[in-house]
Amino acid sequence: MIQPLVPRLAIIGAGLIGSSLARAAREKHLAGTLVVADADPAVCERVRQLGFADVVTQDAGEAAEGSDIVVVAVPVGASGKVAEVVGPRLKPGAILSDVGSVKGFVVEAMAPHVPAHAHLIPAHPVAGTEFSGPDAGFATLFENRWCIVTPPEGADPQAVARIVGLWRAAGANVETMSAQHHDLVLAITSHVPHLIAYNIVGTAAHLEETLTSEVIKFSAGGFRDFTRIASSDPTMWRDVFLTNRDAVLEMLGRFTEDLTALQRAIRYGDGDVLFEHFARTRAIRRSIIEQGQETAAPDFGRRAAEKPKHEDS
Amino acid sequence: MIQPLVPRLAIIGAGLIGSSLARAAREKHLAGTLVVADADPAVCERVRQLGFADVVTQDAGEAAEGSDIVVVAVPVGASGKVAEVVGPRLKPGAILSDVGSVKGFVVEAMAPHVPAHAHLIPAHPVAGTEFSGPDAGFATLFENRWCIVTPPEGADPQAVARIVGLWRAAGANVETMSAQHHDLVLAITSHVPHLIAYNIVGTAAHLEETLTSEVIKFSAGGFRDFTRIASSDPTMWRDVFLTNRDAVLEMLGRFTEDLTALQRAIRYGDGDVLFEHFARTRAIRRSIIEQGQETAAPDFGRRAAEKPKHEDS
Repeated sequence: MIQPLVPRLAIIGAGLIGSSLARAAREKHLAGTLVVADADPAVCERVRQLGFADVVTQDAGEAAEGSDIVVVAVPVGASGKVAEVVGPRLKPGAILSDVGSVKGFVVEAMAPHVPAHAHLIPAHPVAGTEFSGPDAGFATLFENRWCIVTPPEGADPQAVARIVGLWRAAGANVETMSAQHHDLVLAITSHVPHLIAYNIVGTAAHLEETLTSEVIKFSAGGFRDFTRIASSDPTMWRDVFLTNRDAVLEMLGRFTEDLTALQRAIRYGDGDVLFEHFARTRAIRRSIIEQGQETAAPDFGRRAAEKPKHEDS
Repeated sequence: MIQPLVPRLAIIGAGLIGSSLARAAREKHLAGTLVVADADPAVCERVRQLGFADVVTQDAGEAAEGSDIVVVAVPVGASGKVAEVVGPRLKPGAILSDVGSVKGFVVEAMAPHVPAHAHLIPAHPVAGTEFSGPDAGFATLFENRWCIVTPPEGADPQAVARIVGLWRAAGANVETMSAQHHDLVLAITSHVPHLIAYNIVGTAAHLEETLTSEVIKFSAGGFRDFTRIASSDPTMWRDVFLTNRDAVLEMLGRFTEDLTALQRAIRYGDGDVLFEHFARTRAIRRSIIEQGQETAAPDFGRRAAEKPKHEDS
């Protein structure tokens, strides 16, 4: 029998990310024993029904006991509390990791609870959907997506290699960087985009009631795509903004300055400024498609599937 | 033989919308003779190769001559100029229409060129992708999408009914409203969303070079979805902002006020304000899915297609 990558793997939190990692580990036989813990008894029951874990428990400490790798997959704001429970139960050489969208705060919150005989190696798989909970996960979520590992200074290289290996085995491409740099990059690629999506959907909701119903009706003009992002888990995103405040405010400041410039061009009818800006942003899209982080299918494939059978040529 | 809905239908401009309408008309046999005009000889040549028109010409006036319905499908800013060429060639009872994303301006620009013996009935199919040109179109683009018809005051009811009938036959659901109301609704459902998508992609492009390349790399965290919208046709969108200025500035003002409130909540760590806002926007998403303007497939179906075969349960 082939030795599994991780003899005992514990995943704390069975939401979208935790349950997807569990499914990937299950499907690819990455763990000798796969333990999933969730504080919510209803979630535990559902995980048992879905059957993607060997052991299911409400007790994070019990899950951590004897585990080689413990991955905390809870909203960032709860990571310190979980580490407090899990830390004392970590065996010598065990690795505590996470999947949080903010890394500086997570290190601050978790590090004090990690005993000297264990390792803290945070990670962030940059993948997801707008759905939450154990039913939302799927085994291929991380395939060809990036996972950013942020080893603290002086981290044990072997421990880093094991976390990198786990995510590669789950299908992800792995990059390492500092927690601080991660938080700056994610502020612009993820946190500010989510905030402005939440914001414009909120603006539409504040309109007079008849107008709001028309916004829903005619949402295919662009608004619809924002509502998808703006339906992501509220607890997770509240925590992101509270814990990555400085980088988000910095990037939000740049966003607002740029928007003011476009607004000014609209007010004064400066078509050249608008055209030049709009033409430039196309190049960035092209790069993303070239790097395989997106397909070129129009309209997110909503129509693409129907296209070939109706095409003229 | 069944009488076609429109004996002679002319479409001026063979971009995404014009070529999709032509393909729909062809597939559903809506026109006795289908004439497509485009000022660009290369586009005309391509339309001939694709073979979805009976007559292809560079001359919009020639296309209009003898046509029962003439649909102008060019960037909004060019609609007046096209009307100037087409207007004098319209036969008695002919209907001039368009597909522009802004309606007040279009009426102003086109109406002076429409002779008394013809009708101006503007329309706006709320559908599209981020691609442009005759190859981007497809016959099902309008299916189950809304088309908003904005008859000017005192418009001939029979002429309105013919334009409504044409879009219904092309697969769209039709709603009528005033041009002014249309421009306000679209400012929030389409124009402001496009502007802020263009803007955040621009903000990312202005970062230091190494950071910009990381933004592309890690775009799956949310940014990616904005780049799709921000790769839409620059000429079309420049014209939209220049011609729907007042409504866009009004909605942009509301957006900015709301964003400032969220920014303030982040700065002062007010988690309740953030959570409440984020939870509320989920409801709007639900309404859009319930009304059939979107599917609930996660991640725009990027992964959904792979999901079933890997699912645990």
